[in-house]
Amino acid sequence: MSTKTNPGRFFEDYSVGQVIRHAVPRTVGQGERALYHALYPARGAIYSSDAFAQACGLAASPLDDLVAFHTVFGKTVPDVSLNAVANLGYAEGRWLAPVWPGDTLSSESEVIGLKQNSNGRTGVVWVRTTGRNQRGEDVLSYVRWVMVRKRDADAPAPETVVPTLAGVVDAADLVIPKGLDFTGYDFDLAGEPHRLGDYQPGEVIHHVDGVTVEEAEHMLATRLWQNTAKVHFDATQREDGKRLIYGGHVISLARALSFNGLANAQMIVGLNAGAHANPCFAGDTVRAWSEVIETAETPAPGVGAIRLRLVAAKGDGEGLRDDAGKYLPHVLLDLDYWALMPV
Amino acid sequence: MSTKTNPGRFFEDYSVGQVIRHAVPRTVGQGERALYHALYPARGAIYSSDAFAQACGLAASPLDDLVAFHTVFGKTVPDVSLNAVANLGYAEGRWLAPVWPGDTLSSESEVIGLKQNSNGRTGVVWVRTTGRNQRGEDVLSYVRWVMVRKRDADAPAPETVVPTLAGVVDAADLVIPKGLDFTGYDFDLAGEPHRLGDYQPGEVIHHVDGVTVEEAEHMLATRLWQNTAKVHFDATQREDGKRLIYGGHVISLARALSFNGLANAQMIVGLNAGAHANPCFAGDTVRAWSEVIETAETPAPGVGAIRLRLVAAKGDGEGLRDDAGKYLPHVLLDLDYWALMPV
Amino acid sequence: MSTKTNPGRFFEDYSVGQVIRHAVPRTVGQGERALYHALYPARGAIYSSDAFAQACGLAASPLDDLVAFHTVFGKTVPDVSLNAVANLGYAEGRWLAPVWPGDTLSSESEVIGLKQNSNGRTGVVWVRTTGRNQRGEDVLSYVRWVMVRKRDADAPAPETVVPTLAGVVDAADLVIPKGLDFTGYDFDLAGEPHRLGDYQPGEVIHHVDGVTVEEAEHMLATRLWQNTAKVHFDATQREDGKRLIYGGHVISLARALSFNGLANAQMIVGLNAGAHANPCFAGDTVRAWSEVIETAETPAPGVGAIRLRLVAAKGDGEGLRDDAGKYLPHVLLDLDYWALMPV
Repeated sequence: MSTKTNPGRFFEDYSVGQVIRHAVPRTVGQGERALYHALYPARGAIYSSDAFAQACGLAASPLDDLVAFHTVFGKTVPDVSLNAVANLGYAEGRWLAPVWPGDTLSSESEVIGLKQNSNGRTGVVWVRTTGRNQRGEDVLSYVRWVMVRKRDADAPAPETVVPTLAGVVDAADLVIPKGLDFTGYDFDLAGEPHRLGDYQPGEVIHHVDGVTVEEAEHMLATRLWQNTAKVHFDATQREDGKRLIYGGHVISLARALSFNGLANAQMIVGLNAGAHANPCFAGDTVRAWSEVIETAETPAPGVGAIRLRLVAAKGDGEGLRDDAGKYLPHVLLDLDYWALMPV
Repeated sequence: MSTKTNPGRFFEDYSVGQVIRHAVPRTVGQGERALYHALYPARGAIYSSDAFAQACGLAASPLDDLVAFHTVFGKTVPDVSLNAVANLGYAEGRWLAPVWPGDTLSSESEVIGLKQNSNGRTGVVWVRTTGRNQRGEDVLSYVRWVMVRKRDADAPAPETVVPTLAGVVDAADLVIPKGLDFTGYDFDLAGEPHRLGDYQPGEVIHHVDGVTVEEAEHMLATRLWQNTAKVHFDATQREDGKRLIYGGHVISLARALSFNGLANAQMIVGLNAGAHANPCFAGDTVRAWSEVIETAETPAPGVGAIRLRLVAAKGDGEGLRDDAGKYLPHVLLDLDYWALMPV
Repeated sequence: MSTKTNPGRFFEDYSVGQVIRHAVPRTVGQGERALYHALYPARGAIYSSDAFAQACGLAASPLDDLVAFHTVFGKTVPDVSLNAVANLGYAEGRWLAPVWPGDTLSSESEVIGLKQNSNGRTGVVWVRTTGRNQRGEDVLSYVRWVMVRKRDADAPAPETVVPTLAGVVDAADLVIPKGLDFTGYDFDLAGEPHRLGDYQPGEVIHHVDGVTVEEAEHMLATRLWQNTAKVHFDATQREDGKRLIYGGHVISLARALSFNGLANAQMIVGLNAGAHANPCFAGDTVRAWSEVIETAETPAPGVGAIRLRLVAAKGDGEGLRDDAGKYLPHVLLDLDYWALMPV
């Protein structure tokens, strides 16, 4: 029997400082843009209209920021999370340049932390992943940590290195796309009149709409990002015969649903933290709510930044955590991100 | 709680003469073209092949006329039909210019009629909607009327204004795309030998094929047109747990099915009337038949016009209306439109 | 009742030497590329990345070879297999030029063989189909034979002509895309280190991953190729209410799954033989394995050819044939093809 297939890496295959060049660069374009709009109820005007994007100082409509995220992330799966037990968190995510139709993205990850778990059978791996275009420009950088199985429980534990990570990306470190200018922003065409000054920290917005998810949809999406984790596609992988929906699919659904109330939170520029609180399955009806955490200025004309908590939930459950601080069972996602909004 | 989400307009929010600039312009292109062909069994040669379109005098293959319709229509939903009880009719629809890959479409509607219903809880709103490209050219115009809920049953009724609408778009008013020339039309490549003179008023064509519809398909389509009506996506909106399929999805299915027998009814240029007779749900097998109503000349070389009734039905039911003139339960759609065909 | 719809051809409608120009040329582009990646877990680097393709000497990333195959094949269905009882085999398939985004493909078939079956109700039709682009260049040629119903069992049998077909395309006859050069091939980016010399005839590779298939997916794909066979779309066509999945969908699934272990089997250039062993239905979990049959040199720098048997199976069944030589019930596909691989 051939042993040429990829078994994925196990915990003992990682070492701090190791750099992994992930396989299969990917050119994204008009087709991915159309599919993104078919898969998610996305209506953000900059990503929907070349004319609107140009009126905001951009050359054209870039691909949705989450297309960049999913594509860069997808490439890391065969090397980072094929044998992962859990996707534990994100930090220090920054979008560094827009992705234009025709750009080719590739990914690279550096191992920045390792910690074997006390059970001796798994460990936590921290990687800093960078997405880059065909011109060698970085388009995205983020830290992600996952719990990975050991191949051999008797393998010695590596030295523990836990990276120091910022709890929040400082507003001053957000990268504003070149040329972005919201001084002539057309609120009518964008869909809502609310500007940065209309949002108050602590304000909660229930996004009204819901989407009942189908198997075909999440698989189309997850394949499009070339994410190869078996549990998303193969119904025989779990005892209950269910396919686990890629957490990023829930991020995109929730972000798209948040248009209704946050239509002007246009471009995602920072990912502060994120938790996939509970699994999502086909048949679930996903809803979302957002909480305004803070707002900030940026040097770009007319452009402010808004920090949002985006929560996705299934069914009609309310609330976020139980008394012990554990996510309630209906909570799917708890994401902390920065977006740009006209002031 | 934030009140920033869009509750939609209620009957008392409309006034005759009011112009609503709808949100979120949309750039459509190669991706939408491919998805249209994946979602519907569309085979019309002008929309399938640049080379064929060029041989007919066009610069390239435009986007399907119904992509223009759905995109322009979709933008009106948040302002016109979010609180609609029923989509009552269409009239005076004309396609005014082809939509080319890369074009950005936006929509505007003028309220042209209002009539409160005798129950005092709903009213009928007539709007004339215009779709426009990024060059400011009108690409589509049509009248649509919907029954909309009142927010407050006690709000006073507006003055009744019922617009006078043409029952049929006059053939002389149809706009033929610039340069269109069917004198060198290749019937082999188009798929059928039948030309305008081969069709007789009263002739009925059963289109043979059927499509069993899936939830994922109609949701992908309806999202692609950025139609935001909740009933299409959220299985918890109706007591029976069913998602109502967007009526336009049925229009596109039926039109695509009509290729078999009407392969040369190439471009839609007029929408005379339309009724969504009964709801369509996933699992229904949709079939279609057409009746030739009349034919007409046009000034373009080799180009004639054919007026067709297109009926979509589910299952094996036959017939259109019962003795009382009500649509039979299997009838989904009854559409009256003009298309261009080689003479 | 109109008789303008296409009833398809029956056995007695074919004659040896007859050339059929199939309808509806099709322009394929970025949208089809994106959909291909959404529908299949395709990761081949040349088809995923313009930059990678350019580093291999090509102008850009061509469309997947199977997009060419499905598109050319789809056009033949209304003329060749609408009344087919079975798709019996393929031979002498050669890819003759890459298909670039924006190319328009059309198909033509020549009837090269006829043999009435002894039951007198069906017969076998052999056609050689050629796909051509808008520049008049052949892009694909293959022989296919199908069993077709007779319209009239009493119609006289035609003279039997059974074409002599090569069991295998000779490696010397494979057409290497102009400019292809694997001397600077980046194995890291391609996803695996294995080169031609690492594969041995007889080696078997189990491709590890599986995909549980959904109705929406196979219908989206099959429509995209404008394949009009009713059994793929209409759940009322079979007594068991199942929609038969287009055999080509299984080919693409299996080929995409084979990335894991054959990431460097980049371009398909020859189709030696193929059997759709058993029907595939929604809900089936498709897996694949490959057997290396032989390897060969090519005149292109750094480019070798590998001949592979690709088998798709559903569920967990093992093995290929029973003692009587019949395919086991879990076997879906048995395909014999040539691909290009770095030496």
